[in-house]
Amino acid sequence: MATGKTTWTIPEGYIPEGSNGPEPEMLSHESICILNTSDEDASIEITVYFTDREPAGPFEKTIPAERTKHLRFNEFEDPEEIPTGTPFASVIESDVPVVCQHTRLDSRQAENALLSTIAYPSES
Amino acid sequence: MATGKTTWTIPEGYIPEGSNGPEPEMLSHESICILNTSDEDASIEITVYFTDREPAGPFEKTIPAERTKHLRFNEFEDPEEIPTGTPFASVIESDVPVVCQHTRLDSRQAENALLSTIAYPSES
Amino acid sequence: MATGKTTWTIPEGYIPEGSNGPEPEMLSHESICILNTSDEDASIEITVYFTDREPAGPFEKTIPAERTKHLRFNEFEDPEEIPTGTPFASVIESDVPVVCQHTRLDSRQAENALLSTIAYPSES
Amino acid sequence: MATGKTTWTIPEGYIPEGSNGPEPEMLSHESICILNTSDEDASIEITVYFTDREPAGPFEKTIPAERTKHLRFNEFEDPEEIPTGTPFASVIESDVPVVCQHTRLDSRQAENALLSTIAYPSES
Repeated sequence: MATGKTTWTIPEGYIPEGSNGPEPEMLSHESICILNTSDEDASIEITVYFTDREPAGPFEKTIPAERTKHLRFNEFEDPEEIPTGTPFASVIESDVPVVCQHTRLDSRQAENALLSTIAYPSES
Repeated sequence: MATGKTTWTIPEGYIPEGSNGPEPEMLSHESICILNTSDEDASIEITVYFTDREPAGPFEKTIPAERTKHLRFNEFEDPEEIPTGTPFASVIESDVPVVCQHTRLDSRQAENALLSTIAYPSES
Repeated sequence: MATGKTTWTIPEGYIPEGSNGPEPEMLSHESICILNTSDEDASIEITVYFTDREPAGPFEKTIPAERTKHLRFNEFEDPEEIPTGTPFASVIESDVPVVCQHTRLDSRQAENALLSTIAYPSES
Repeated sequence: MATGKTTWTIPEGYIPEGSNGPEPEMLSHESICILNTSDEDASIEITVYFTDREPAGPFEKTIPAERTKHLRFNEFEDPEEIPTGTPFASVIESDVPVVCQHTRLDSRQAENALLSTIAYPSES
């Protein structure tokens, strides 16, 4: 059973500069959790949008069949890195249905803060 | 009146290791809140997905008619326990319509942090 | 223009016991924010579900035309009060379309924590 | 490819009074993140609703083609400012499809707190 959609959007994105606490668990991060419940591997393309420059990407990822990956934007490298301290947004496109959730751990101050929301599933 | 859907997905999942503050209220936990507004008991099956191994479950739960349960992943035992400090995702399937919400209380540092989102309702 | 739905569900509910910081801004609270963009007053009925007893309510509220109200569960009194430290869930029914969002401020520890999500809009 | 809807609703709104930490990153703020993936600029009109007065606005904004903007309610000035310490709600209307997400950073106490949710996409 494949559950989900093939296009997801996350308008909020921000990699905080700086952290408090032991790494990597407490490293400030902005992440996308993707679940692929289908019996086929999912080929994912992520496009990152900014306020005042052309979009970056596509960043290519694979989520194997019946697996989940929690991707961190601060680990994106190819075709480029995502700058810290800069607002961005992202669109995730997959060749099989998946489900996406957006989570931030902000540990800039001594105590960590969390946010999370299911991403916006587009019609496709 | 039964409100909701029969399949729900939560791509984000993580049971923090360690807590601060009095238990059980302040114990770090990852939970699913399920509401069954129908006049029939709901039989629930939860499948848990990981990054690098086969899915676990199904974990079987019952939500009585017109009742809510706030299930904590760290209390799952049968057919196995969910490891702490490990990313996972979950799919909740019910035989009657229900509504699911995902909440985390993270009390690893001195002050607690919270996240919550309505889960993703699949078409079914 | 009236935007929204007439039935909304919030599976998560919990009024923390105790607070830190000046009241009423920093009083721990569990709230529903309701927006009525229509040109008619909205008559709202809220039913509260528990784990091990019959549902409570309906709690009756009015949201005037083109107004918003941020209702706090800890201020509900009629037909009864909502107990603190107890998991609950809620269903909001309105005679005109409205939009509902769930927010918690938890100030049990020295620093506050926040969660929020758009409620689940039922088909009706 | 234009993804999204033309009307979005955020029932929760509140600009905290006071902040802790370096500005502008740590200034308490209530924001809307808007992504325009289309190849046309988006003309946005935001209406702000209150508990006990007429709605304010429209506040007019432009999101260029293939760009994102993270708008802060505390920077709204025309036709008026949004008062701090006051509950409000907002409706965002666009002439091309966009996607909206609501985020709050609350830094009134020493450590910051975060909330975020995809806004409610209306049928239109």
